[in-house]
Formats: sequence, structure tokens, C-alpha cells
Amino acid sequence: MKNVVVLGAGRSSYALIDYLLEHSNENNWHIEVGDLDISLAKQKINGHSNATAFQFDVSDLDDCRKIAKRADLVISLLPAFLHAPVAEVCVQESTSIFTASYVSPQMEKLDGEAKQKGLLLLNEIGLDPGIDHLSAMQVLDKIRQHNRSENEKAEITAFRSFTGGLLAPESDNNPWNYKFTWNPRNVVLAGQGTAKFIQNHQYKYAPYHRLFSYCEPIESEEFAQVNKEDENYKFEGYPNRDSLKYRSVYNLDSIPTLLRGTIRRKGFCKSWDTFIQLGMTDDSYKIENSDTLTYRQFANMFFKYDAFLSLEEKLKEIYNFSDEELKKWEYLGFFEDKKITLPNASPAQILQHLLEEKWTLDPQDKDMILMQHRIKYKYQNKAKELTSSLVVFGDDSEHTAMAKTVGLPLAIAAKLYLTGNLKLKGVQIPIHKEIYEPILKELEQHGVVFKEEIKEIEESELYS
Amino acid sequence: MKNVVVLGAGRSSYALIDYLLEHSNENNWHIEVGDLDISLAKQKINGHSNATAFQFDVSDLDDCRKIAKRADLVISLLPAFLHAPVAEVCVQESTSIFTASYVSPQMEKLDGEAKQKGLLLLNEIGLDPGIDHLSAMQVLDKIRQHNRSENEKAEITAFRSFTGGLLAPESDNNPWNYKFTWNPRNVVLAGQGTAKFIQNHQYKYAPYHRLFSYCEPIESEEFAQVNKEDENYKFEGYPNRDSLKYRSVYNLDSIPTLLRGTIRRKGFCKSWDTFIQLGMTDDSYKIENSDTLTYRQFANMFFKYDAFLSLEEKLKEIYNFSDEELKKWEYLGFFEDKKITLPNASPAQILQHLLEEKWTLDPQDKDMILMQHRIKYKYQNKAKELTSSLVVFGDDSEHTAMAKTVGLPLAIAAKLYLTGNLKLKGVQIPIHKEIYEPILKELEQHGVVFKEEIKEIEESELYS
Repeated sequence: MKNVVVLGAGRSSYALIDYLLEHSNENNWHIEVGDLDISLAKQKINGHSNATAFQFDVSDLDDCRKIAKRADLVISLLPAFLHAPVAEVCVQESTSIFTASYVSPQMEKLDGEAKQKGLLLLNEIGLDPGIDHLSAMQVLDKIRQHNRSENEKAEITAFRSFTGGLLAPESDNNPWNYKFTWNPRNVVLAGQGTAKFIQNHQYKYAPYHRLFSYCEPIESEEFAQVNKEDENYKFEGYPNRDSLKYRSVYNLDSIPTLLRGTIRRKGFCKSWDTFIQLGMTDDSYKIENSDTLTYRQFANMFFKYDAFLSLEEKLKEIYNFSDEELKKWEYLGFFEDKKITLPNASPAQILQHLLEEKWTLDPQDKDMILMQHRIKYKYQNKAKELTSSLVVFGDDSEHTAMAKTVGLPLAIAAKLYLTGNLKLKGVQIPIHKEIYEPILKELEQHGVVFKEEIKEIEESELYS
Repeated sequence: MKNVVVLGAGRSSYALIDYLLEHSNENNWHIEVGDLDISLAKQKINGHSNATAFQFDVSDLDDCRKIAKRADLVISLLPAFLHAPVAEVCVQESTSIFTASYVSPQMEKLDGEAKQKGLLLLNEIGLDPGIDHLSAMQVLDKIRQHNRSENEKAEITAFRSFTGGLLAPESDNNPWNYKFTWNPRNVVLAGQGTAKFIQNHQYKYAPYHRLFSYCEPIESEEFAQVNKEDENYKFEGYPNRDSLKYRSVYNLDSIPTLLRGTIRRKGFCKSWDTFIQLGMTDDSYKIENSDTLTYRQFANMFFKYDAFLSLEEKLKEIYNFSDEELKKWEYLGFFEDKKITLPNASPAQILQHLLEEKWTLDPQDKDMILMQHRIKYKYQNKAKELTSSLVVFGDDSEHTAMAKTVGLPLAIAAKLYLTGNLKLKGVQIPIHKEIYEPILKELEQHGVVFKEEIKEIEESELYS
């Protein structure tokens, strides 16, 4: 019998835990689920005979050690900054650990000892990062297979990859065309820092306050089905973090153009950008008297003093707000005299507080995951663009597409590992054929299917 | 005999050390000057019989302790972050210490023990912070003296204070009307974070990327003399850091308007803002291949990819650059194919590297300090504005107005302390009459003289 320990039983855990329970009999697994709130863990295992729930406090290092000792595999769904300390204990106790988060420098440091002990520390095996790596490497390797000889080499000139967690068309019913389908704090703070990418051999650095000026339209035949045939329901993408490091990760070291980004409904970027321009997403200081203010006063703090103009007029005059954009602010409640009630809060916390009232999924709301890779390449003297697109729908506000696409890759990777079908050692991310092939194959059975289009393009479009 | 130890013999130390040496005979002082580079210390004491130079390494804690033991007073001109560790040793050895830097939280923590031992840890006693506190408190207290009865109260409604280190008119000969008169790194990074102030009872928060939209003209009769009677030589000011905390410091807790700021020549703010907008003052990441790039390529990294427009055309089209503004960039060398040569540098480091070539004082260059307080108040039913202005010129690139106005307040405060005329204890800043009155009086003998203008204003102007 193999013992699998899942740490964290929050909203994104259901698909992972369901999969593990479903496959527990045939594989002779026992599943333990731990959470600070044991009721969440109990709810997720739902009385299954192969599973136990336990109360887990990550600050209790002794407990961590006992868990690592008795586990054959630990899967951590804890907040990203907690993976490294847990992984450290796992390595000491010779237990492998999987996460869906970016490899941190502290995680990287465990590589040597993990390899020595024959352990696998698999990270970035969720949605984004996760399915994006699996599917990008599969399609890139497919294009590279053309390379039969020097004369028949496929030259990859541009790689773009975008992912977004959005609302399914039937639940998309507010003026922002958006609700929170994952951690609201991460949504509010998204993009802080400098986005880095390369375009036609030119390095590009986009500071946070100019991030959305790099917005570009995102289209594909596959996405047309969720467009509602309405201009406002099309999609756009903006650059996400450091794309430069993926040149070596994806074995595209000298590629002229590489960009990873985030997908939103059309118009979202411009409207969200107003919050950034004003400074309303700043999390670096507290507003002492925030609980005595209205949201209108809060917004006015970020405008120059003006004795005559109302907030609505300032938005129109300074940011050229259309009626549609004003409606977005009105919908959130900025124009009412509503008190903030949150004491000593940062601008970002105040904004999040307001958005959570309006952008929380209703029980029957369905979410939607979109992913798209666009790869330009030259082969046999023809310029081509391959577009690989994914659409996944959630079932309701609990069984979200987000939880499914984060949890299933983790679960399938766990099965591969526990059945001896993953030979990798050390700190890894899922870019090897040995991982992406079986996982993508099984994901298809769960409705996670990429659709490919290939079209010829102009030679001049190849590099940008 | 009293032993005074000066730590740090850099460019800003000459006026302080000269003053101490000049007054050493009459007061029976021995002056020790320590610097990591002992030749700097030797140069500053220039063979004076009451002085010794020594090599000082702040990381040698034993040495620090010996110095604190033998000193009657330590004056630290070290970089700001080094004051607290030195002050800690001073307090342990029962020695008072003075600095010209903002009180840090670590410094604040020493208050209790310093008071117990009867020590004075005097900070913010340079120019800005320093002379601004002294002169602001003097003029505020003067207005408050009107308060003879409830019926004759002077109501202070707005306080603005601006300081700038600039070039004297005869040395002001580049298109930027600016050179470095203090630490270049601090100039390049100035304004990062969020500026906070209050205007007509409304809190205002200005994020870095919108700081210069709050620029306002700075004028006074006193400043007209250094205007060169030319529109381009007038002055402007932008908000500096957290002004809100000075409401309690200056005893102006319920004042409707309070703003502290920085003075520049007119046009500087708009031109510098382009660097901020583009992201060229970012110090949070390194550009790996920076030593292989030209400055033109460096600038292009911050623009959207465009196959057709040159850098000059982008500046004109996107930032509406006038010919005058283009000349500023041309002067710096952005349009030549000049290599950066600095490896693995941040955007801010690259920009500083370029500016240091162009903005370093020539030996005969004279700098200039400007300071202005503008106070609006209501007294006997009249609305008034008092403007108190200071202009100080440097003699040459070594004997700068900056060094004079930073060093003399420190030196005079040291004399007051060593002659038993400063009774304050604990961590203090110079806002008490016991300090500001004698120091401002003696500063006048050194040409540091504020000129006051009082005019009546409209009632409606009082609060903004």
C-alpha cells in the first residue's frame, strides 16, 4: 500500500483529491488530506474508505516531519511561499513532493540532495504553470520532428503562449466580463514588477504602469465559439512576468520572439489599467483612516485636488471614460456613498474588498479556462503559423475549470510516479516527453483537448 | 579637553570639519576624522594641530567601540543605513551622536536607553532634513505668537515647504539645467514609492509614475534674482515622500493642506518623467547583456516594438517631445551609437552611468541651494500668505552650497552641545526653540539668511 499525503484542501483541491480517491482501489493507495481547517479536508474526502482527514499546521515542524516520514508522496497545494520549507523536510525524510507553483530559488537549492537520494521534486505541474508547459513542449517537439536534415530544418521564429481564467459565456453577466475564479489577492496584485519578453530580437521591458499598453488581440477558431458573436466578448492578452527565461526552458535559445501572457475579455485591460494608473492596486502602504472613508473618497485620493469636478467628471476628462467604462465603476459602487469599513488597509486591500462583493462566483456560475500557443516557423521555404487552443468549462462554482486544470495534471503525475512510470530525479518541471505525453493523453479523457490550426503567413510576419 | 569624532570625510564633510577646526582652540577641542580612505580624512584636516586622521572601517565593531569610548561626541556622515549600528555602540558606551539623516525605526528604538543615560541622539540636522525644520518651526512659532487670546488666534491653513540643490546661474549651462550636487544614485532613484500629502482636507497619494503630474510653480521675490529673467530658468516643485507625518512633528495636526517637496528648474520634471514612464529608473532587475548594448538600444527596449519608427520619432510621436526636449536626450548621448560598457546593470545603474559623464560638476562650477516655506493663515479676519525663501551659493565644486548647508547645522549643534547649551535627551530632531534659535542666528553669519514676504490673499485661496 502507498500513502499519498495532500496538504491543503481549499477550493482548488477537489479535482486532485477526487482523482486520487477514484484510483485508490485499483492502485492500493491510502490518501491523507490535511488542512488547517480539518472540516475542509473531511468534506473533500467525503467519507471515502481509503482516505483520512487530519488537521495540519505548517508551522508545526515536528508534525511536518512525521507526515513526510509516513508518506510515499506529498502533494502540496499550500500557498507558494510554503512549498520550500515543506520540501526541505520531505528531502530530509527521503520523500518526493509535487507542487503546481513556480520553482523558487529555495526549492532550486534542494536539487542536489534530492538527486542524491533519488527523489523527484516536481513543480509547475498545474495549469499555468503546468498544462502550458506540457502542451507547448508537445507542439514544439512536433514541429522540431520535421528536422530530418540540415536542408529540411523547421526554423521556429516566434512563440506566444497565453492563458486565462474567465467566465463561461452563460455566466458572463457583469459589465467587467470577469469574476474571481482563483485567489482574489493574486488577481489584484497581478503584473506588479516588470514584464520581460523578446520581440524580433529586441528585448522588451514593460514596467507595471505600462503593462497594458502591450495588450494584443487573442483569436482562434476554437475561441470563436465562446465569443457570443459580440465585439465585447472577444479576447485580449497582456505580457506576464519574465518570458525571457523560457527561451532556455523550451530549448528556444535564439528565438527572435517569445512572449507569455494572460487572457482577458476585450476591454478589461484598459479598465483595469485605470486602477493601476491611479495607484489603487498599491499594496506597499496603509491608509490609516480607511474605515472612515467612502469608496468615492478613496478614489478621489488618487486624483489631483480639484474644487469643481466630480469623480465621474474626472474619469471622463482625465481618462476619457466612455459611458460603458463609467458603468463598470458604477457597478462596483464607487459612485455611492458607501463606507469602506476596512481599517488601516492598503489601497490594494480596499480594492480587493470591494471587488470580492461583486466578483464572487454565484453557486451556479460556470468558469472557463482558455489557453493558446501561437508558433510561427519556416519550413521548406514556407512561412507558417500554428495555433493550438484549449477551452475547458467548469460545472459550477465548486467544480471549476480552474480546479480541474490545476488538479488533474498533479493527480496524473502522481499516478505515473507511484506506478513507477516517472524516472526523473531532482527539482524538475514538466517539459520532458516522458511526462507530457502520458499526462496530455489522459487529460484528453477529461475534456482537456487542444485544437490545432495551421495557416500560411507572410514571410514578413515571421519574426514579430 | 573634549574629543569630537567625525565619521566619514567625503564631499559633504568639508564645512563641518572646517568649522570644528576653526573653533577648536577657543573651546579646547580635539577633532578626529575617520574614513575608510584615510587620505580623504588627512586632506580634510589639512595638518591642523588640534586634529588627527584615522582609517575607519564601520564593519570593525571593536574599533567602533573604542571610538565611542574615547569620544565626547560622534558625528556620523556615513551612508544613512549605517547610522543605527554606530549609534547602538555609542549608546552602549554612553556617547551622544549626531546625524543629518532621517530618523530610522532602528534609531527610534534607542530613545529609551539614550534618555536613561542622559544622551542626545540628534538626527535630521543637515539641510533637508535640517535647515527646513529649523526655519519652518521658527516661522510657524512666530505666526503662532499672534495667539494672544481665543479671539485673536492665527489659524494656519496651509503649509508648503520645498528644497532643491541646483546650479548657480553662471554655471547653469546644459540643456537639463541640472548637474549632480549630491549622491547621483539618490538623484536617479528619487521619488520611488508613493508620495503622501494633504490638500484642502483631502488625503492625496501619488504613485511614482504620476509623481510629476503634481508639479507646481515655485516663485518668490528672492528667487527672481536667480531666474536669469528667462522663462526656462524659473522653478517648479514636486511632492517628496510622506508629508503627512510632519503634521504632528510641526504641531499642525488638523491643518487642511501640508506638502513637502523638491525644487527643480522649470521643464526638468517633464523631461525626467519620461525616464520614469519608460521604466529607465528601475533598480529592481538587471539587464544581462547590458555591456553589449548601445544607449540607443537601451532606450528602445522600453518602447513597443515598431519596425519603422526611429527612437527620435517615437519620442516625438508618443511623448510629444519638442525640439528642446529632444536636445536634452541628444546632449546625454542617446542618439549616438555609444556602447554602455557596464555589465549586468539595472536600468537605473545604466542611466546613472550615462548621467555621471554629463552631470558631474566642473572644478569651477558653483551650486546653489534653494528653500522656500509658504504658509497660509487667517488672522484678524484677513487671509495672508507668508513666504520665507533662502538662496545659498557654493564657491566651487569642492566648497559647495550643499556641503555648507548640510555641515554647518551639524557643526553649530555640536558646539551648542559641547558647551552645555543643549539640554535635550534621547532621539531628537531639531524642532525646538532651544535648537533652532541659536543655530539659525549663527547660520546668518555664514550667509544662510531667509527672506520673508507677506501678502494678503483671497479667502478662497486659504485652504488649497
